Amino acid sequence: MVDIAKANSEAIERMMEARPFLRGLAPAREVVPNMKDNLVMHAGPPIEWDRMSGPMRGAVIGGLLFEGLAKNEKDAVAMVEKGEIEFDPCHHHSSVGPMAGVTTASMLVYELENETHGNKAYSNLNEGYGKVLRYGAYSAEVIEKLKWMNDVMGPVLKAAIEDHDGIDIRALLSESLHMGDEGHNRNKAGSILFTSKLAHRIAKVAENNDQEAEILKFLADNALSVLNPVMAACKAMADAGHGVEGSTIVTTMARNGTDFGIRVSGLGEEWFTAPVEQPDGLYFPGYTSEDASGDIGDSTITETAGIGGFAMAAAPAIVQFVSGTPQDAINATLEMYEIAAGEHSHFTIPQLDFRGTPTGIDIRKVVELSLTPRINTGIAHRDAGVGQVGAGLVRPPMKIFENAVIAYAKKYQL
Amino acid sequence: MVDIAKANSEAIERMMEARPFLRGLAPAREVVPNMKDNLVMHAGPPIEWDRMSGPMRGAVIGGLLFEGLAKNEKDAVAMVEKGEIEFDPCHHHSSVGPMAGVTTASMLVYELENETHGNKAYSNLNEGYGKVLRYGAYSAEVIEKLKWMNDVMGPVLKAAIEDHDGIDIRALLSESLHMGDEGHNRNKAGSILFTSKLAHRIAKVAENNDQEAEILKFLADNALSVLNPVMAACKAMADAGHGVEGSTIVTTMARNGTDFGIRVSGLGEEWFTAPVEQPDGLYFPGYTSEDASGDIGDSTITETAGIGGFAMAAAPAIVQFVSGTPQDAINATLEMYEIAAGEHSHFTIPQLDFRGTPTGIDIRKVVELSLTPRINTGIAHRDAGVGQVGAGLVRPPMKIFENAVIAYAKKYQL
Repeated sequence: MVDIAKANSEAIERMMEARPFLRGLAPAREVVPNMKDNLVMHAGPPIEWDRMSGPMRGAVIGGLLFEGLAKNEKDAVAMVEKGEIEFDPCHHHSSVGPMAGVTTASMLVYELENETHGNKAYSNLNEGYGKVLRYGAYSAEVIEKLKWMNDVMGPVLKAAIEDHDGIDIRALLSESLHMGDEGHNRNKAGSILFTSKLAHRIAKVAENNDQEAEILKFLADNALSVLNPVMAACKAMADAGHGVEGSTIVTTMARNGTDFGIRVSGLGEEWFTAPVEQPDGLYFPGYTSEDASGDIGDSTITETAGIGGFAMAAAPAIVQFVSGTPQDAINATLEMYEIAAGEHSHFTIPQLDFRGTPTGIDIRKVVELSLTPRINTGIAHRDAGVGQVGAGLVRPPMKIFENAVIAYAKKYQL
Repeated sequence: MVDIAKANSEAIERMMEARPFLRGLAPAREVVPNMKDNLVMHAGPPIEWDRMSGPMRGAVIGGLLFEGLAKNEKDAVAMVEKGEIEFDPCHHHSSVGPMAGVTTASMLVYELENETHGNKAYSNLNEGYGKVLRYGAYSAEVIEKLKWMNDVMGPVLKAAIEDHDGIDIRALLSESLHMGDEGHNRNKAGSILFTSKLAHRIAKVAENNDQEAEILKFLADNALSVLNPVMAACKAMADAGHGVEGSTIVTTMARNGTDFGIRVSGLGEEWFTAPVEQPDGLYFPGYTSEDASGDIGDSTITETAGIGGFAMAAAPAIVQFVSGTPQDAINATLEMYEIAAGEHSHFTIPQLDFRGTPTGIDIRKVVELSLTPRINTGIAHRDAGVGQVGAGLVRPPMKIFENAVIAYAKKYQL
């Protein structure tokens, strides 16, 4: 008989003891396992072109334009339809990407290394606000910015990161949770901590003052600069907890705009999926829920690792962005203790007397209590090429947890 | 008959509408009103050498060494005893300085300008941690660091600050209060916001990469980098509320290590003073309250302007530094509403549903309720030359508020 409690303890201990350091920056083709030139990695569980949501399609088109594989939108769609392009979840390549999560072979990715267990994880660069690929935009300005990030900022950032012994992202998160971040939708403190830690290293390696100023301004003005390294860090933590025989802890939650998928520590590589829900939140002027795409992105790796929606209590100011009151934020975290297997030993919430964040979603508790995880999220426009229209809260479909419990019962003959 | 309520409304409206921008950096002798080469400005109300506390004396000695006016400690003391050095509160020169507050003619000072009312305020540069002049240390390493700050960091920082249209310190504070700062003892978020805002400007003007890296590291690693501009901003706000006929609002609170002094909006330039209290808090390893100097520093200008101890609720993580629990931090702010004339229109506390911080200490309420202001503070060693030994909480002596009320009754013939 499998000792589930013991297996879950081991899984969450491994997640919490994982200590991911940002150690490098390199083109995906050079470092991401099994990356290929005609492969487009995307957020969420596996999906083919004909079922992809608008923003996912837009980002795929943008990715092919960025790579120079296609000359224009029509070209890109034709290539895809002829089967010249392969698709695969970022999660199948130790990677994660926010929103559409589209990552192609030439794109630079942050390399994170979990010092405790040795596993690695990767994430692309954050584009900032406005028209951006991750929300499905692919106009000339979007591609231009991606090129500036890769060709101008990239080499400087790479030299600055690789010049020293790495940035401890778990420590950075511990600190930013004491500074009003929850690490998913609110990364204001984390992003300026990140910029402050990089600034003097960038100063050392940059050769052109104007370029250097442009890079530092880009990092400092983007309150999501650190989101991608944070996501990769959470991926490294979650992966460290994956594969524990008998564990019912969720180690992946991800959405591709069409389906929501989870994977479970004791259930191998199988995805449990169902159609995504619609986020509920605040919309930018001129947009309503009618404009919203279905839930999308790998950024739910933050909730999987015990922050984001699970650490809402640490971030009362976030309600100005996602709606609700500071008391709702406290309640959100208190609710998540109900379905969590433990409390984080490194991520604590001052507002709750420094209690550890609820960590390690137990599929049994989700089903027993009929209580799904709370997720903070950005909201993309439903059409390709538009971009972000709001931010808010969403939950995964209950069905995927039920199916996971059934699969678990079958595998472990309960 | 004077309309006190109306006068107080006007005083606090002026304080809250004051909008201080950091606009420049220059040697005190060039910009501080009535600065002189043989003048040592110090924290708190007026005091002469023979009554100065250990840390104040240590800082005076250090200031004279820094200026090259004295060759050694003995020299410095002899000069002072011969009457060759003049002393005056920073507050008499539109200035403020943390702890000993010692500022001499060659030291660089931040120049803040209140865009709303036009008044200016000044504060010296923050030295960071360890052996520092403001805590009364004056060894060779202390003087060396001050010289590096003035001669190496100074010109770069000056060019970076004066290169653009200024940094809105009120806006920076509004943001940092949503990031777990209270603006006095905890300025972690504010300091990295400050560093992030300066980094790209520094990149533009710096000519030497290694120096630039050193400067950016110094600013980023010092969680009090922004304290001095914040104090000068609070001074500019408080001064904007000073001199309103009939107002009972406190516009200065300051300590010199021996006496605590206040001034009141409707009572002109008169100081009301009494011996300082002993701070109560957490001590660094190896030190106890036996080692502590009396309460010292101009940094109480933060509480005067509605932040610091008054905004404790915004900074639950500060209790790890000053003792107490997050609930104590909430209670501290709630208590201060009792003696405040209003709630700040720009400084809000997410934890209290974005309620404005208690702003404008009313001497009548302090006396009626027998409730003195709560102040967050660093704790200096009682002897000259040692430095910081802890951090904690302190209150001013009740007597100074009673004396102010008596003086008010006399002046306004109540």
